[in-house]
Order: sequence, then structure tokens, then C-alpha cells
Amino acid sequence: MDEVKVIEIKKSVFADNEKDADALRLELKDRGVFLLNLMSAPGSGKTTTLVKTINRLKDRIRIAVMEADIDSDVDALRIKEATGVPSIQLHTGGMCHLDAEMTRQGLDGLMTDHLSPDLVVLENVGNLVCPAEFDTGSTANAMILSVPEGDDKPLKYPLMFSVCDLVLINKIDVMPYFDFDMERCKQNIKMRNPNAQVIPISAKTGEGIDAFANWLLNMVTAYKK
Amino acid sequence: MDEVKVIEIKKSVFADNEKDADALRLELKDRGVFLLNLMSAPGSGKTTTLVKTINRLKDRIRIAVMEADIDSDVDALRIKEATGVPSIQLHTGGMCHLDAEMTRQGLDGLMTDHLSPDLVVLENVGNLVCPAEFDTGSTANAMILSVPEGDDKPLKYPLMFSVCDLVLINKIDVMPYFDFDMERCKQNIKMRNPNAQVIPISAKTGEGIDAFANWLLNMVTAYKK
Repeated sequence: MDEVKVIEIKKSVFADNEKDADALRLELKDRGVFLLNLMSAPGSGKTTTLVKTINRLKDRIRIAVMEADIDSDVDALRIKEATGVPSIQLHTGGMCHLDAEMTRQGLDGLMTDHLSPDLVVLENVGNLVCPAEFDTGSTANAMILSVPEGDDKPLKYPLMFSVCDLVLINKIDVMPYFDFDMERCKQNIKMRNPNAQVIPISAKTGEGIDAFANWLLNMVTAYKK
Repeated sequence: MDEVKVIEIKKSVFADNEKDADALRLELKDRGVFLLNLMSAPGSGKTTTLVKTINRLKDRIRIAVMEADIDSDVDALRIKEATGVPSIQLHTGGMCHLDAEMTRQGLDGLMTDHLSPDLVVLENVGNLVCPAEFDTGSTANAMILSVPEGDDKPLKYPLMFSVCDLVLINKIDVMPYFDFDMERCKQNIKMRNPNAQVIPISAKTGEGIDAFANWLLNMVTAYKK
């Protein structure tokens, strides 16, 4: 069985996360690395979405992935095996989120061997509450809400929706089996964040993945100019 | 439109949550109140499950509900309207979990007017990480894992599964549309917690709700003896 590098993340010592996040953002800009912070509830399909999207983009831009998880290594391994792009696992040791300093620990572990990706995706801990409260230093924030979770989630987890530039609505292939109203969901998201883009997708069937890949490619291209 | 009592929960001042939780548990035992702490990821179906279960039990035992949410009041209102049992909303003000002192604040708000329930259900914040770390003083812990979240969740959120006496596997009506293996899921749960009981349910169709209601009734009856 394949193996991936695992980094045990330590608790941050920095008191001022905002300042630290801004510093990391500047540093990444200097190095031409776009950092996407991808968040969601557990089981919304982050890893499957990433696999499909990376396979569409990996011949056009250099991509690397950091998979944050409390304990297991399955996600980093899956990314590595299914896409071939560099992927490492960050163990948070029970911690429910990553802040900028913890993200930096991951980046330090990732960016060895002269690796210079255009895009690093940070798959954050599956949690709609805590990760929204901590700026990771990312260039952009995206989240996945999946159809089975319900169209009312923007009402219940307001901060998460308000900090994201993009909301992917995943598992639209099972919409017929759930009481999920896409228009109501979009309105709920708009109420929390009028500027958020919304892209409905099915990571399973591939529907909408091109739209997400294009959004990402445009963002990275504009950033590197 | 109906209204429910809303309590703005304040951050705890107690340093020793374990001790405080044990004290609350003793106090509840003295008063004959069974406190069930119900946890899950966002959108797994806690409120729908509660509505169905309470309607099966409310003529046999006195039930009251505390709905913890970051911001909205929709859950407490839904419980009140759909079941008629006393229900209050706890606003955590962004906090990702409840500890024993916060639970006590909720109970103090709930147990006015000579209300003396046999069973209080605390619907915790939708989060598989943080609520598992804080003993609320509950008599028992239960969680819901829903089929769309995947059968691998016990591997990724080990602590949550290890602190629960009961795991409900919800949304079994949509199993044909997801790659979810019930046996593998049960094995994963057993690995984390050999003593956890597992009950597959569909809050939508009602399947398995009788089994959960019976489990709850047996627990409350044994506790009050």
C-alpha cells in the first residue's frame, strides 16, 4: 500500500491569528502560490470533489494538496493514488480547525524538494463551525454544502457561509430523494453572503465539475498575473 | 407564528468541566431527570428524528427539549409545533459545543413553572468534533450518523463515536443511492466503541423509530427505579 507524508500539527503559539494570516497571504503571493481553503461538514464530499477537479486541471497548473484530519490518513492517500499530485496529511490531534500558523506548518512540510505549485488546496477539518472562525491565510475560501444536509444550513451556520467566496452545492444527483429546494438554498446563501458564487455539482456524476474547475483556473490565473 | 423561549448561553467560568459535569449528573439523578445529549454532524436529521420519537413517547413519559444552535430558532419552534412538548432554544453565540455549565444554564431556563420532565433531550450543536470533547453532565450520549455522510466516519471522528452509548444510523431509505455499507459501518463503530448500540433508522419513513423509542424508554425507566 502506498504511503503519504503525515505531519502532526502543533497548537499555535501566535496570539494574533489575523496578523499571522495576513503575513502568510503576502508570503504566498510573493511565491506565486494560490491557497484554497476548502471547508464543509463531515461527509459532504470534499475529497471526491477534489479528485475529479484535480484530474481536470493537473495538466494545466501544478497542484498540491494538504488533507487535514483529526486522525486518519485515508484522504491524502486517496488524493495521491487517484490524481498523482503531491499530497500530505495533516493530523490536528483532535483540534477542530486550522489557523494560519497550523497551515504554515503544513505548507512547510509540503513545499520541500523544490516543489512549487501554482495551487495548494487545504482540505480543512469537516466542521461547519470552528474552521469559519480562523483565517488560515488562504487566498480564497470555498465550502461544500451537500443536498442531504438541507437547504436551511446557511441559516444555522451563518459565519461559514459569510466567509466563503464560493459555495459548491454537491450531490445534486440525489435531489429527487431529498426535500431540498435549490432556489431557497441560493436565497439563504445570498442572505448570508451576497457576493458568494454558487455552483451546483455532483462529484459522483461529474456534473458541474467543469464549472468549478474553470472558476479555480480563472482565480489562479488572475492571481498569478 | 408561534414563539419559543430563547436563552443566550454565556461562556463557562468553571475551570473543571469534568467535576462540574459529575455534579450536574448527580443533581439530575436526585431530581429524577434523565438527560440525553444528542449529537451529530449538520443535517443528519436530529430534529426530524426527535419529532418522530417524541410523538411515540410523549404519552408515556414527560419530555422536554433544549435545542442548541449557533443562531436560529427554527428547531425549537419545530419541536414545539410538531410535538407540543416544552422546548427552548439555546443560542451558543458562535460557540461550537456545550459544556456542563452551559447545559446547566439551559436547564435553569427550561425547568421553570414546576416543569418536572422524566426526560430532557439536549440537541447539541451540529458538529462531530468539539461536542465530543465536553461532558455535558448528560445521563447518556447518543449520536446520529446519516447514510449520505459515509460509512467511514468512525475512522475520521473517533472520539465522537467512542463517547456515545447509542449510534443511530439515519436516512437508511436512501441507501440504494449511496455507496454505504451497513456492515462495514457497524464494524467501524465497533472498532471505536465495542459497547455502543447501533440502531438503523429512517426518520423520514419512520423505520427503526420504534426501536429507538424503546431504547430510550428502557433507559429512562431503569434510571428512575
